Parts: sequence; structure tokens; C-alpha cells
Amino acid sequence: VSTNHSISYDNRPIGLFDSGIGGLTVLKSLLGSLKHESFVYLGDTARLPYGSKSPATIERYLRQNIQFLLTQNVKAVIVACNSASTVLLDSQTNFPIPVYNVIEPGAATAIAASSNQSIGVLGTTATINAMAYVKSIHKLAPMATVYQQACPLLVPLVEEGWEDDPLTNLVIYRYLTPILNTGIDTLILGCTHYPALREAITKIAGPEIKLIDSAEAIVQVLRRDFESGLLLPGAQASPLQLMTTDVSPAFSKVAARLMFPHLIPALLAVDISVAAIST
Amino acid sequence: VSTNHSISYDNRPIGLFDSGIGGLTVLKSLLGSLKHESFVYLGDTARLPYGSKSPATIERYLRQNIQFLLTQNVKAVIVACNSASTVLLDSQTNFPIPVYNVIEPGAATAIAASSNQSIGVLGTTATINAMAYVKSIHKLAPMATVYQQACPLLVPLVEEGWEDDPLTNLVIYRYLTPILNTGIDTLILGCTHYPALREAITKIAGPEIKLIDSAEAIVQVLRRDFESGLLLPGAQASPLQLMTTDVSPAFSKVAARLMFPHLIPALLAVDISVAAIST
Repeated sequence: VSTNHSISYDNRPIGLFDSGIGGLTVLKSLLGSLKHESFVYLGDTARLPYGSKSPATIERYLRQNIQFLLTQNVKAVIVACNSASTVLLDSQTNFPIPVYNVIEPGAATAIAASSNQSIGVLGTTATINAMAYVKSIHKLAPMATVYQQACPLLVPLVEEGWEDDPLTNLVIYRYLTPILNTGIDTLILGCTHYPALREAITKIAGPEIKLIDSAEAIVQVLRRDFESGLLLPGAQASPLQLMTTDVSPAFSKVAARLMFPHLIPALLAVDISVAAIST
Repeated sequence: VSTNHSISYDNRPIGLFDSGIGGLTVLKSLLGSLKHESFVYLGDTARLPYGSKSPATIERYLRQNIQFLLTQNVKAVIVACNSASTVLLDSQTNFPIPVYNVIEPGAATAIAASSNQSIGVLGTTATINAMAYVKSIHKLAPMATVYQQACPLLVPLVEEGWEDDPLTNLVIYRYLTPILNTGIDTLILGCTHYPALREAITKIAGPEIKLIDSAEAIVQVLRRDFESGLLLPGAQASPLQLMTTDVSPAFSKVAARLMFPHLIPALLAVDISVAAIST
């Protein structure tokens, strides 16, 4: 859609997906900053988590989710899930619309935030094994030092609702101690669930360590592409569309507690079959 | 296949499936006891876990897995996964071969083991929410008292390799304390991963609490059906077939540590696509 002026608009929604509902932290950030954009959110709750699975399987899910979002007439896709973003970075596939990962924006933000170019990364097994942040940081800052740590228990602890709990502090302490001993001054929260543990992580890491959340970084990338004309901005937002491949009381509870209590009715109303995605 | 004698044999394999590799504990028990039977094991590692998902989604996976095992020419299916067994018990579907759940054998064994008919159950959210063991126990022993507790963190702790760890003891202590205060004398380990935590659970529960593992109970059910002629026994075992829908280094590591180091080559060699299952 173009106007009489020199600015063109594209009112199609931006699609984003995550393995589950953790990506709602990314959606929240987008909704707060891009007031004229419309969004379609897909949570692949029937097949979560992705972070413990193989690159081949995650890539199959990535393609299927993007394919599904294309049927929703989106103008771009944000892969909110760090594990799926990791696979996207290593993938050779071309898509007919821009597809954004959350790794590169997070890496760039961390480099800008770090004074000593010594950066830590927390992530799922898939993200850490593929060294996604390490590679992305070194592409931009070859001299930076990166220390990473897989934290497979953090997602289950958040889903259990134990964010503010001495037990969770013990687990974080165990994961963080080796990485904190290296002298990092910046720490990437490389999974959409980890912002829920921001307070607990700060308690262990100390307030002097800068925590980087890719949910904030991706907004800047979209703004940049709107300005350069790589992506046309929306003129007016349509109602948010939320879809999940499985609806379980547990997911709604986590979503309610951590993110958007007022979105729960929308979450509960949808249940697209994974069969529609995985064919 | 029938012989000249009055005994008939059926050399087709018995199929079993689990959401992942936890069901190898059931397979181990079957292999040790039924020397003339052949087995096909399917681990749905691409879509694990089941325990946090909705009954509708678990039922779709249950049907697809049984359908797949039928293409492998099995004479019976054992649903080794407690969460899938839970859904099977509530399902109206008829299958062309016997399909066994692990809930009812576990319930019967617990009733026989308990002196005071006060029984505890540990399980996934799906198993506990559906009250699968409570219903199965009350069908056989209406006066029994059953206390249950969902333990969503136990599977991730086992997969992280922290079975023998003070942190895991703390988590078990938190889950077990309310249930132990009720005066139970018997505790059902209602998930295929929990036998890996037998020692840790005994440490918290005390040696006087009897722990029930459905892996052992299902063997008795098969023996009974061989004797009654409901199921024809095998005459000679064929090599074990192991299949998973995703192959990840993490799964092999867990399998190696917990169960069958010598089966890892077989596990690594297979990677049937979940697409073959979910169509």
C-alpha cells in the first residue's frame, strides 16, 4: 500500500515464533516499541523444547513454522527462539521474505555494552553446542573473548514457577561460577526464558555485570530496516494474533505469571493442530 | 507360526514406545525376563517431553506411534511412557492388536505391596492432572488412600546428569515432604525416568517406604497373557531394533550413563523422521 506521499507502508503483520511461550518476552518488547505494527505469534508448544534437540530436527521445525507463518500473509518473520535462530544462521535456505534471528542483534548489543570485550553467554544445549553467539561476536569483534555455558535446567525452573527461590539461586550459582571467574563484564541471556530470571541472575552475578536481552536488541534491528527501506513499516496496527500448537493449562499459567495476564484469553482461544504445520 | 505340538508361537516382535529414552528402563526389564521375545523400541525424542503437554496432543502422538509400530509388524504394543499410558486409559480407540499401559500394572503392584493401603504417586503433570494412578488404584482397591505429586523438575535433573547431587536431593525433598507426611508406606515411581533417582528418593523417603517401578510390573502382565493364551509367545528372539525420531548427542549420553552403554551404537545408527510418524 502506498500513499500520495513518498512514504510507503505495508500493513501485513510481522510473524514471530518460538518453541513455546518464552518468545512472548520478545513480543512484549516489539508491542511496546512498534506501535503501528501488527503481529502474529506462533508458539510451537506441542513440540517444545527445541534446545535439547538436534540441528536437523530444529531445522525441520524452523522451516515448517516459517512456512505456516507465510500462509498468514506476514511481511517478515522474527525467529524469537535462540535455538531456532542458531540453526537459521547455519542454514542455506532462502525465504521469500526477510527472516530475522535474535542471535546477531544480541551479539552486537553485547559488544557495544562490554568495556573489556570479555563476554559471557548463557543458552540452551543447542545454542551453546553450535557456538552461535561465539561465531556472531567474533564476526563483529574478532578480538573479543567469549565464555559460554549451557543451562538446561533454567527453562524447567521457570516453568515450575521457581524464579524467586533459593533452589534456583543454587542452580544459577553453579552454572555461573565458572563463567564469572573469567572476568566477563557482560552476560548474554541467550534464551527467551532467561529474562524471567534477571533478578536471580543479578543476585549471583552482581550489579556490575551487564545483562543483555535479545528481546530489546531485535527492536533496534527492525527500526534500522524500516529507516533504510529494507522493510516497509505498518500504518496502523491490527489486533494481535496468538497461536500455539498445543494448549495446556501449564503454558497459560506460565504466560500469565511471567508476561501478559491480559493476553491469556487470546492464548486459550487458539489451538492450531501441529498437523497443519508438520505436513 | 505353529509347531506340531499344541503350543503356538508368534515370532513377531513386541513394540514399545516412550516419549524419549526413559522407556529403556522398561525395555531393560523386558529383555532380562522374556528371553524368547523380540522387541522394537521407538523413542519419540523429536517431540519429547509428553508430560507437560495436553491430553489431546499426547493422544495424537500415541496414535501416530502405535500406527508406526503397526507398520513394523508387531504383535503387541507396550506404552512405556506413563503420560501416554494415562491418555490411553481415557481413550476410546480400539487397536487391532493388544496395547498395554504401564499404569494399571503399577497400580496393582502397589496395592499388593502396601500394608496400610496408603499409597503415594510421583508423576509428570499430565499423569497427575488426569489422576491416572488414583483411578486405577481405586478400581482395584476402593478403600485405598492415594496421595499424588507432580514432579516436573525430576526429568530435566536426570537428563542433566545430576542424579547423585545435593541439589537434586533438595528438589526431591521439596516434592516428597508433603506426601511423606501423610503416612504412605508405598510410593509409585510414575515416570520412566524416576528409577534413575531410586537411590536419591530412598535417601529422602527412608528405606521403609516401598518404591514401585512399573518396568517390573509390566513383565508380570505379559507373562500372565502368555499363559492364558491372550498373547502368543515368541520361539526365538531376533536382534533388538531401536528407533528414535531425533538423534541428539545428549540423548545418547543419557542412555549410556543410565542404561545400556552397549546399545548406543544401535541408537546412533537410527534416525527415522518424525514426518514418517506424524503424517
